[in-house]
Amino acid sequence: MKGKIGFVGLGIMGMEMASCLLKADYEVTVYNRTRSKAEELLSLGAKIADTPSMAAKGSEVVITMLADPGAVDEAVLGRDGVIGGLESGAILIDCSTVDPVTSSKTLAAATETGARFLDSPVAGSKDDAANGNLILMVGGDKETLDDVREVLDVISSKIIYAGPSGSGTMLKLCFNLMVSHMIAALGEALVFGVKSGLKPELILDTIMAGRIAAPVYEWKGNCIIDRDFSTKFSTKLIHKDLNLILSAAYSLDTPLPVTAAVKELYALAKARGLGEEDFCSVVKVLEESAGVKIAR
Amino acid sequence: MKGKIGFVGLGIMGMEMASCLLKADYEVTVYNRTRSKAEELLSLGAKIADTPSMAAKGSEVVITMLADPGAVDEAVLGRDGVIGGLESGAILIDCSTVDPVTSSKTLAAATETGARFLDSPVAGSKDDAANGNLILMVGGDKETLDDVREVLDVISSKIIYAGPSGSGTMLKLCFNLMVSHMIAALGEALVFGVKSGLKPELILDTIMAGRIAAPVYEWKGNCIIDRDFSTKFSTKLIHKDLNLILSAAYSLDTPLPVTAAVKELYALAKARGLGEEDFCSVVKVLEESAGVKIAR
Amino acid sequence: MKGKIGFVGLGIMGMEMASCLLKADYEVTVYNRTRSKAEELLSLGAKIADTPSMAAKGSEVVITMLADPGAVDEAVLGRDGVIGGLESGAILIDCSTVDPVTSSKTLAAATETGARFLDSPVAGSKDDAANGNLILMVGGDKETLDDVREVLDVISSKIIYAGPSGSGTMLKLCFNLMVSHMIAALGEALVFGVKSGLKPELILDTIMAGRIAAPVYEWKGNCIIDRDFSTKFSTKLIHKDLNLILSAAYSLDTPLPVTAAVKELYALAKARGLGEEDFCSVVKVLEESAGVKIAR
Amino acid sequence: MKGKIGFVGLGIMGMEMASCLLKADYEVTVYNRTRSKAEELLSLGAKIADTPSMAAKGSEVVITMLADPGAVDEAVLGRDGVIGGLESGAILIDCSTVDPVTSSKTLAAATETGARFLDSPVAGSKDDAANGNLILMVGGDKETLDDVREVLDVISSKIIYAGPSGSGTMLKLCFNLMVSHMIAALGEALVFGVKSGLKPELILDTIMAGRIAAPVYEWKGNCIIDRDFSTKFSTKLIHKDLNLILSAAYSLDTPLPVTAAVKELYALAKARGLGEEDFCSVVKVLEESAGVKIAR
Repeated sequence: MKGKIGFVGLGIMGMEMASCLLKADYEVTVYNRTRSKAEELLSLGAKIADTPSMAAKGSEVVITMLADPGAVDEAVLGRDGVIGGLESGAILIDCSTVDPVTSSKTLAAATETGARFLDSPVAGSKDDAANGNLILMVGGDKETLDDVREVLDVISSKIIYAGPSGSGTMLKLCFNLMVSHMIAALGEALVFGVKSGLKPELILDTIMAGRIAAPVYEWKGNCIIDRDFSTKFSTKLIHKDLNLILSAAYSLDTPLPVTAAVKELYALAKARGLGEEDFCSVVKVLEESAGVKIAR
Repeated sequence: MKGKIGFVGLGIMGMEMASCLLKADYEVTVYNRTRSKAEELLSLGAKIADTPSMAAKGSEVVITMLADPGAVDEAVLGRDGVIGGLESGAILIDCSTVDPVTSSKTLAAATETGARFLDSPVAGSKDDAANGNLILMVGGDKETLDDVREVLDVISSKIIYAGPSGSGTMLKLCFNLMVSHMIAALGEALVFGVKSGLKPELILDTIMAGRIAAPVYEWKGNCIIDRDFSTKFSTKLIHKDLNLILSAAYSLDTPLPVTAAVKELYALAKARGLGEEDFCSVVKVLEESAGVKIAR
Repeated sequence: MKGKIGFVGLGIMGMEMASCLLKADYEVTVYNRTRSKAEELLSLGAKIADTPSMAAKGSEVVITMLADPGAVDEAVLGRDGVIGGLESGAILIDCSTVDPVTSSKTLAAATETGARFLDSPVAGSKDDAANGNLILMVGGDKETLDDVREVLDVISSKIIYAGPSGSGTMLKLCFNLMVSHMIAALGEALVFGVKSGLKPELILDTIMAGRIAAPVYEWKGNCIIDRDFSTKFSTKLIHKDLNLILSAAYSLDTPLPVTAAVKELYALAKARGLGEEDFCSVVKVLEESAGVKIAR
Repeated sequence: MKGKIGFVGLGIMGMEMASCLLKADYEVTVYNRTRSKAEELLSLGAKIADTPSMAAKGSEVVITMLADPGAVDEAVLGRDGVIGGLESGAILIDCSTVDPVTSSKTLAAATETGARFLDSPVAGSKDDAANGNLILMVGGDKETLDDVREVLDVISSKIIYAGPSGSGTMLKLCFNLMVSHMIAALGEALVFGVKSGLKPELILDTIMAGRIAAPVYEWKGNCIIDRDFSTKFSTKLIHKDLNLILSAAYSLDTPLPVTAAVKELYALAKARGLGEEDFCSVVKVLEESAGVKIAR
């Protein structure tokens, strides 16, 4: 058996990532706020901790995969949080998508306990997580990264070293900025074209025929046409990320006029009750406002 | 020698398209407002007409490739325009990117003379035009398309039949809507990331590593990093297209909130003097406002 | 009895304006597409014309009050339009809110018949129109204005001379730009505050207590709180004006980023079926998206 | 001599407010990060404290007037902050414009010390502050407000009771939302009109002639035409408030599409170096982009 890993946060992605580590023969102690989720991993050999702190206790590597900065504040920095159990010499890896301020607070807290820290948000879908095919964007000391590369290779097919601490978080925000724009653009193009009488498959084929072709268009475009809004990545989470992006842009004094409009479009979707659906359901807001429905 | 073609409009794209037809051994009579442009084609065997009308006279197929609806109003529908010389039984193909209203006026005028009409805007770069690799989006009667397919195959590698008259124009507007969003998104992501200290190559590599990868990002992203803003497709033209899109959306009663923000970003670029540069120069507006410069 | 006036267009405003002129003892020949509207004015002594052209025939002054540029194209410039009957030496006054291009086409056509032309859009409500209290924004020759001042004084309490032909139209577009922004701002402030638990009357009182107080806030704010969306000025018309403004801005190479967002908000309102309601019903779009309802 | 007041924060507004209290014969102990500012008040009888905590010590009422939530975190809640010296039974009044979260944290901290708390942001200009003519928007217990009304009457001409704790802050954010929109609208209208050839005074007169007339338009409109951008309220501060508004709207799940566009316009202004100028200098961004300059 390989080394000891603490794993905190068993959402859609975290559950798959922890499974991969267990299957790769690591000794994984998991924590999740809703304990039943953790119990699903018992059959793979997981140990269950009662608090994040106890998941960290005795672990060489601790991975956190949480919903947002508030969850990190609580489960990492708060009472009974990871920091409380973190061993001197351990490596804490935060795979959550948060803002630079949160990454910086976590770095400071980890450093104080004598541990090392990497911010390492992930890109990819639930299936990618299940197959260990995530993309990791890692910020922190390069040697620290090399020290945990074996662990990270289990969950990812590509590790991008982004630079000093916080860089992984910023790179992920850049990535999600792009994602959020692209699905908004796809939605506006489909609704605009369909309202004029074009078939949506035709629009999608045309997009996929030129230099603007991207796999995400084919994927999400077909989901939209097939009315499959099962959640791979929720409206609520992309809206959260857009809020982090615009807050960071405020601090960086960087105007992002289009991103601001994109955020409000997802805000409309979330407010209309689509928060838990896949974020490509944002197209429904546009469909309703134009009075059309996209279908094969 | 093959059939007689009238060709009106020798801009960046039109020049390459007419050259292809000449090289493919068609008998091409060209017209361009600035005559010297037309004279460049003499060596390939082109005949030069003094008016659009005279380019149409005697041609079985007439192709127009003009800048905007105003140019079509003038060179096709106006005094000495194509319609005046169009033969009964000829086929008029408008490859310009215009709005549905203009396509519909041209259809009516062509039909009145006993000719047939296709709206057939193109996607692709200057190089694609030079190599006969454009994508055509054709609206009109399917039989008419079949009757000119041999000619169109000379200039294109892919012909998409979009539906009844006007559909080609609408499909092209959908396509350019996507293009305009994607470069705006790329610009905001690069400026946001670089302002925070990330290297632009790293952001681009990350984009190209995931499902959001699109060839246009690699192409224009490297242009931006290398500061190569030589014009493949100008800011002025994408701004014109966004104006056509939002006018058509007004008529179709289709709100496009993000596209509206995208349009104003290109408006800022054009107003700042970037109208004749490549449209990826829109990033300069964002760079200046954030006080950073993207460079290798 | 005073001079002969042709009056074309009996919408909400036009009806009141024509009534004022009849009550002031002018000899008014009216035309309206829906004839029954015209018949309502028979009791005040109106004559009814069968075409716009016939309303113009024999009139010293012709006033047009139409919905949009398309209506002016038809009823003024089209077949049986005003221009066809316009006497040499007559004065044509277009009180419609249109774009500079339409004003310029009307000027050219009127001048060709030997008539003079003023663009003279109006500001004010239905009640203002009924009481002859409109504000006029007049573009054209100043002497021409002086020659019809007596007539204009009947319908207006304030005449603003805007400058050469087309200036009245531009000034009105500036005015309506402001109006559209102010009601959008009021809507966002009310919904934002009420969602947080504030009473809407309190927000309105606070607005009216400071330097930002404007009568339109008190008026429309109380309409919103009282759920009175009876149409003084419709969502459809403000949306039309915003479309004219952004088209003119495109031609003038003037970015208007906020106005672009304002337009899409009214587009959402119109697309949601609020086109015929008062434009302050735009608040309903915001209420629904935030899941609150403003009420006393 | 009247009661003892601690006053923390001597910016543009705070300086005038503290002066009013001194002139009204209160015993005021002031604190300001830059001590020289505090020394300007020695001649009026002020005592100077070395820390915010010491300004609070022994005071019956403590008033804070700080730049943003970060400043409140530091000077009120942080080390040597007001809370540390706040007497049980004292009343803390925060006149800063902050977000609801900050007001709520301050309430909790004050309550823990046995003190009472009011959030009471102000509206008005520097001149209003100098003359004791501010508008106060007060959130908290109504009896607490009654207990300090005598003090607040010194600095304000109108006290609006907004409701439970945090309501004053929310009401102020609604107010500033309106202010930010109105100046953006004014800027776009002026630039749009002037680019078309209208005189700016004419546009302003027209605005002031109708139901949209608001004193702030006359004031700031004349500043713009006279090129007087001396700071009454800075671009930086309105941008900060827009950031607070959109963060609060995110938490309240309230889409604000136009406010998002307004924020990015001020972001452009701030990024262009106008952060310290009056916020009506936002018009310069629009002028530059349209290539016109507004002048008498």
